[in-house]
Amino acid sequence: MRSAILSLAIASLLPAVCYAAPKNIIYMIGDGMGPAYVAGYRYYQHDPANATVASTVFDDLLTGMASTYPDDDTLVTDSAAGATALATGVKSYNGAISVNRQHIPIGTMMQLAKRLGKANGIVASSQVNHATPASFLAHNSSRRNLDNIADMYLDYRIDGKPVADLIIGGGTRYFVREDRNLVNGFTDLGYQYTDDYKQLNSLTRLPAMALLADIALPAALNSDNGGMLAPLTDKALQLLSSADKGFVLMVEGSQIDWCGHDNDIACAMAEMHDFAKAISVAKAYVDANPDTLLVITADHETGGLSLGANGVYQWRTDVIKQVKATGREIARQLQQLKEPQEISQRYTELTGISLDKVQLQLLVTALQDADDKAARNQILQFISDASLTGWTSGGHTAADVPVMAYGKNAAEFNGFMDNTAIAKKLIQYIQQSK
Amino acid sequence: MRSAILSLAIASLLPAVCYAAPKNIIYMIGDGMGPAYVAGYRYYQHDPANATVASTVFDDLLTGMASTYPDDDTLVTDSAAGATALATGVKSYNGAISVNRQHIPIGTMMQLAKRLGKANGIVASSQVNHATPASFLAHNSSRRNLDNIADMYLDYRIDGKPVADLIIGGGTRYFVREDRNLVNGFTDLGYQYTDDYKQLNSLTRLPAMALLADIALPAALNSDNGGMLAPLTDKALQLLSSADKGFVLMVEGSQIDWCGHDNDIACAMAEMHDFAKAISVAKAYVDANPDTLLVITADHETGGLSLGANGVYQWRTDVIKQVKATGREIARQLQQLKEPQEISQRYTELTGISLDKVQLQLLVTALQDADDKAARNQILQFISDASLTGWTSGGHTAADVPVMAYGKNAAEFNGFMDNTAIAKKLIQYIQQSK
Ligand SMILES: [Zn+2]
Ligand SMILES: [Zn+2]
Repeated sequence: MRSAILSLAIASLLPAVCYAAPKNIIYMIGDGMGPAYVAGYRYYQHDPANATVASTVFDDLLTGMASTYPDDDTLVTDSAAGATALATGVKSYNGAISVNRQHIPIGTMMQLAKRLGKANGIVASSQVNHATPASFLAHNSSRRNLDNIADMYLDYRIDGKPVADLIIGGGTRYFVREDRNLVNGFTDLGYQYTDDYKQLNSLTRLPAMALLADIALPAALNSDNGGMLAPLTDKALQLLSSADKGFVLMVEGSQIDWCGHDNDIACAMAEMHDFAKAISVAKAYVDANPDTLLVITADHETGGLSLGANGVYQWRTDVIKQVKATGREIARQLQQLKEPQEISQRYTELTGISLDKVQLQLLVTALQDADDKAARNQILQFISDASLTGWTSGGHTAADVPVMAYGKNAAEFNGFMDNTAIAKKLIQYIQQSK
Repeated sequence: MRSAILSLAIASLLPAVCYAAPKNIIYMIGDGMGPAYVAGYRYYQHDPANATVASTVFDDLLTGMASTYPDDDTLVTDSAAGATALATGVKSYNGAISVNRQHIPIGTMMQLAKRLGKANGIVASSQVNHATPASFLAHNSSRRNLDNIADMYLDYRIDGKPVADLIIGGGTRYFVREDRNLVNGFTDLGYQYTDDYKQLNSLTRLPAMALLADIALPAALNSDNGGMLAPLTDKALQLLSSADKGFVLMVEGSQIDWCGHDNDIACAMAEMHDFAKAISVAKAYVDANPDTLLVITADHETGGLSLGANGVYQWRTDVIKQVKATGREIARQLQQLKEPQEISQRYTELTGISLDKVQLQLLVTALQDADDKAARNQILQFISDASLTGWTSGGHTAADVPVMAYGKNAAEFNGFMDNTAIAKKLIQYIQQSK
């Protein structure tokens, strides 16, 4: 009897959990979410009335960092090569959608899941055929072939069926085209479908598809609801949880990267908040379903963001919190005004920043520029200057990205790793838990 | 018998190591070493002839990330407040050397070690009374009071003795002054002393002191030996390892930060290499002495460094590897030349970069500027541009910093933490292992 109890005690101490693969995987990718975005979001959320800064869900789940370099000598990846690494465990060239340098397809974890009878789905706040989700579901020599990629979502079959059991995001223009109506193709195969966020409840089982915008979903900062990634993630988990053999869900906070490309810090923080809420939904799912692994990472850093700039030892979240719309939306609104005084007043309403004469003249001149970028850049430059937010690029950088993990096998993601190692582990779990 | 074996088996499975404090602590601080420095150093070390990028000692030991904000609403710390947090577990204002807002001293881990009969020492590549080491050994309302801080190294006593058993770095000008000779004070108390790196072997036991430069040690990039932090760390460990009750050693890679302030990427990578070699020495010590904990972190990020800039998806380490001296040293050499052609030729010899006519004119003009910064900034701007290295500041930023740990209790440093949590754990270990 004593021995039996002891044996039990030993069994309970053994790291058995490390050797049993999780049944379900929730894989969340913050596009462009470099380390400064995660730290910045913590301070953006911080109430200065509190003495200490509260940790965020990103902080609470952080386990390590990952390198992101692509399969060439540039060291800086684009979203396609980054997502290819994260979806297949194999690095490729910038622009590649899960094909190698010879343009040969590389199998993705969603394809593997489908083959093994596990459910899989993607949720994105971009068009669903954008580089990151595309690399999980399709193969293409270029991310730019958006129609081809959408076609492949329907045409590439495993055991006679499209790869994805669930597709949620934007992009009707790519799926309902003059030359081809892919939505009809999906519904003919039994997919439930809606293009109306209010009708999301009409999706009651797999397979299903929701394309909720012409291209991307609205920017979180411009939305009354602050973004819809959390409810979409919740809906996806409800639908996928019925799968007998478990599921693999990829959720992308797609537009963090777009804010980064624009060097738009308020936009970025709002997208981070949208993504954080979706992570909290996923974390709660893991708490209720312990046979689930949640992994969160980014494909690369965007913009060379720094918290503090220009020699000043301060980062002013108070300035950022005053900004009510993205630089693109502010530009759109200001371009409808003519009088400098109107422009100045509206700019202040939308940003909390009062312009002096020189600044106003710069803004008025930029608004007259034929290139839309000129006005946007000037609008955002004032916000970056006032908040002491630094940017070094309108593109990506080679920064390592954070890795967070929670639930079953989370400890396997401790420390530093390459982005391909994340995918390799997940692929191994999918194989082991079939 | 069976039960006995099982009990033994259980004991071996229990995480006993988590509850026993390490006898020795090696605490290494890369001043200014934000996450991009660690990623950048990996790529700087990478040989493009290899298909995959090898991990560095930083990568191999990475366990988490730490926030660094000071005790005010700026979010961006200076080195004094950062080191105060890392040495005491308490945040303070920028400029504070282990005092709080009321300028009341906060006890440091070195003082605690001394009180408990453990040996302690510091090694720095700056003057030894610079902000980071100062916060471990002294108290002052301002880091600028360098003479006062040096005085306190001798005058502040615990059980009648100075706090530090071992002090190695630069700074003779602060310790051998017209108004006071502190070195004599130390030798009167029985400290062995040298100011000559070649005589380092004359230090044979504790207490001991080596001040090897007037102010800071030579920049690693300008040194034939590539920096001396590794042999100094080795020497410190030899001396401290004789302590019966164990030791606490703080080693600072002081000048990473200075390169960052100058926005000098080749300088920063050389300092990172010097620091990495010192870490390898410490890691080998832990391997030979498993009752030792090695923790590595940074006080903050400097410069808003990004790997890639200006919209280009590339970071060119080949450019950086060609640079043979720091911006300050290149400026010093070029300022001795008169002919533009000489300047151009020497610049190319020192950097590998060929200047066009416009660039040469900019450089010649900058060299004529009364402010030394003008020439240095121009010299470094060409290197940053050619290598696609981004910088947003000549100061610090609020980026989280990497945390590495190795040896006994290393797993306690997994995940995200505040910088004060690192110090609190180490202080707890010092108390527990007395
Ligand atoms: Zn991306
Ligand atoms: Zn510092």
